[in-house]
Amino acid sequence: MTRPTRLADLPHPPDTPAVLIDRSVLDRNLAGMAEFAAARGLRLRPHVKTHKIPEIARAQLAREAAGLTVATIGEAEVFAAVGCTDLFIAYPVWPTPAKGGRIRALLEAGVRLRVGVDSPEAAARWGGPDFDGLELMIELDSGHHRSGARVDGVGEIARVVAGTGRRLAGLFTFPGHSYTPDGVAEAAADEHDCLTAARDLLAESGFAVAGLELSGGSTPSATLTTPGATTEIRPGVYVFNDAQQLELGRCGWDDIALTVAATVVSRREDLGQVILDAGSKILGSDRPAWATGFARVPGAPGARVTALSEHHATVAWPAGEPLPQRGELLEVVPNHVCPVLNLVDEVTVTDGGEIVDHWTVAARGRNS
Amino acid sequence: MTRPTRLADLPHPPDTPAVLIDRSVLDRNLAGMAEFAAARGLRLRPHVKTHKIPEIARAQLAREAAGLTVATIGEAEVFAAVGCTDLFIAYPVWPTPAKGGRIRALLEAGVRLRVGVDSPEAAARWGGPDFDGLELMIELDSGHHRSGARVDGVGEIARVVAGTGRRLAGLFTFPGHSYTPDGVAEAAADEHDCLTAARDLLAESGFAVAGLELSGGSTPSATLTTPGATTEIRPGVYVFNDAQQLELGRCGWDDIALTVAATVVSRREDLGQVILDAGSKILGSDRPAWATGFARVPGAPGARVTALSEHHATVAWPAGEPLPQRGELLEVVPNHVCPVLNLVDEVTVTDGGEIVDHWTVAARGRNS
Repeated sequence: MTRPTRLADLPHPPDTPAVLIDRSVLDRNLAGMAEFAAARGLRLRPHVKTHKIPEIARAQLAREAAGLTVATIGEAEVFAAVGCTDLFIAYPVWPTPAKGGRIRALLEAGVRLRVGVDSPEAAARWGGPDFDGLELMIELDSGHHRSGARVDGVGEIARVVAGTGRRLAGLFTFPGHSYTPDGVAEAAADEHDCLTAARDLLAESGFAVAGLELSGGSTPSATLTTPGATTEIRPGVYVFNDAQQLELGRCGWDDIALTVAATVVSRREDLGQVILDAGSKILGSDRPAWATGFARVPGAPGARVTALSEHHATVAWPAGEPLPQRGELLEVVPNHVCPVLNLVDEVTVTDGGEIVDHWTVAARGRNS
Repeated sequence: MTRPTRLADLPHPPDTPAVLIDRSVLDRNLAGMAEFAAARGLRLRPHVKTHKIPEIARAQLAREAAGLTVATIGEAEVFAAVGCTDLFIAYPVWPTPAKGGRIRALLEAGVRLRVGVDSPEAAARWGGPDFDGLELMIELDSGHHRSGARVDGVGEIARVVAGTGRRLAGLFTFPGHSYTPDGVAEAAADEHDCLTAARDLLAESGFAVAGLELSGGSTPSATLTTPGATTEIRPGVYVFNDAQQLELGRCGWDDIALTVAATVVSRREDLGQVILDAGSKILGSDRPAWATGFARVPGAPGARVTALSEHHATVAWPAGEPLPQRGELLEVVPNHVCPVLNLVDEVTVTDGGEIVDHWTVAARGRNS
């Protein structure tokens, strides 16, 4: 079962390549995660690095999201400027004078702000009157081995945080090793074990742990979150879904809200392939080893995107199916949707076969 | 031998992550390719999709580049607007009404414009008075199997071009299969064979081939170009070089003009790794199978960038060398430099340990 290609329905299709967002699918995805979180008593703090779009952030907050998660100070600045004032920078920001000044400006603007720390050294730097009101969240490594302290290091960081006078708001982890076909359930379990073990260590060391936020939940693992341990989830990709989620079995074709419209610009019957004008400069080039290719084609689930250059996608068409013609419009589902939004300034919003809006990707490029 | 880390020299280092361009290395790279082309009697038409920066395009034209190569109409519009009026869109553009209108506007603005075609169907669409003055270049597949017609199809396309009244300016190919450690010499030979075979086929079919542009030459293969066959080269990456060129043996550390400044935000002695705040949203995520990792670190040639997330680079530090401290600034060389410029709005220009300029990446995001 594949979702219908909407491009044929559009009376005035956009010039390609272009990012399309299906408003109905987006709304259904937003509602689904909000209902899941409410049913389990989890706070939902969506990661907006995925979409970077104020209209979507407002829709998330309207569905009673507890606040937003961002990756950078620059993203926090963009979303604060459009009225989102409860923000968690889920990143071990290193407070250089420049970055410290920007954090201070956000606090002075009235933002309720949480920032990640994963070392005593970083925690110590958030002391002093400049950062009055800032809340700190300790990042833990639950098995992804990226940033995050070892669980057995949580007490030392908490002691330094206490010495700064900053409020320790909670603990968080990103179980990024959930991004494998067989890893989702295990990573969700690792997340649970990591957060509860760290909380218990803090309790044993005499810290008050009642009310500590225990924050986890990437898109693949979010719906496997064990309530009672985790108090907050931070999924991002769920708003759109993508080919990775599809191939991980975490969504179906009908759940994909974002596609890239592309035109067949070249074709070779002898090679059984067509070339589309959507390359890595709009699709991104993320390609996990377990993925079937660099993207998927909803209109042809058997097609494989075997190569991406900057402005070309090479699509091996299923044997026995007629190749599309030059000039034909196709939709492509990117492997990983987050980089896509970081590559365009605007998206085209469709609903029921019509273009209904254009949204600015306000936080595109806000890397620091 | 590694190049010195310049960050330590900067009195006011930029907030990270940030793209740095070393003006002296850039100038040397520009001069080197210009001198090579002049010595061999080759026209140099640099591909500006790599840098997307008017200041660099002007420096290329000042060094007697014959014109510029671009990938999209959008890039052509940006460079035409800043006075670069001899442009080749080296892409099989499919002339939809919207794209056809933009091509016409460029022609009306006085741009000398060449566009790629790789099929009789596309060639036919460039007929008619709207495209008066447009020159067509036939794209050929020299072994990369992306866009480009088979050599034996060149005659049919040339006949259709002749029927449109457009001038057939030449033939071109992109030997992208040169991007492997053992493939460079073979790809350069394939390019030569493809262009000469197609030219000879046209001559046998009665077409006038004197004065036909035979255009090839990616950065790895450009300096292996056989004069006499090829008349024009279109390298792009040579202005900056990158970790791919380094690992292909096509440049040295001292030839790398672009780096990404990054800060150590996390470190784990037990894992022998540090985490930098430069991820795929600034470095891109291109990683050929033969590469040693996702980027290189000039200050530590033995370090390996083993993973990239959107805002994290995981760097396995060489055993026995002390890990850098949190807050330390490092430079990182991206695997593939073209996507990097497409991810930032501005670059910081340094020279002799000082910040001397900031350049706008004017054609960033011009995907269509």
